[in-house]
Amino acid sequence: MEKRSALAIKVGQAVRRIRKEQNRSQELFADDCGINRTYMGNIERGEKVISIDMAKKIATNLGLTLAQFFALIEE
Amino acid sequence: MEKRSALAIKVGQAVRRIRKEQNRSQELFADDCGINRTYMGNIERGEKVISIDMAKKIATNLGLTLAQFFALIEE
Repeated sequence: MEKRSALAIKVGQAVRRIRKEQNRSQELFADDCGINRTYMGNIERGEKVISIDMAKKIATNLGLTLAQFFALIEE
Repeated sequence: MEKRSALAIKVGQAVRRIRKEQNRSQELFADDCGINRTYMGNIERGEKVISIDMAKKIATNLGLTLAQFFALIEE
């Protein structure tokens, strides 16, 4: 099995945590980000090493800049 | 021609600027990051939408966290 990215796992956990703090369902949040729910599930489980553009789209939809988003992850 | 990513262009410009501030050649910096020089050139010209793992590798080799790196870009 391909070695999973530690960063992808942390990003996924942070997306899920912040999304839940904002009381948003995975489905509606995926819609807001313009991606399908299955893909969002993969991201939240840390199964996808996303691009910086996708990270920007997700951070923006959480109301964060990339710097704010990664600061939460790199704490 | 595929629409280029504004973020990838900003990331490339920042990598080049910071690398030069550190008086590092593109070739040596690419070596430090474990990628070939051609690919680093593409990144610096904004032609590649890199992954978060690649962004982490580059930021780390510039002595920055991802949060610090993106703060410079999102100023």
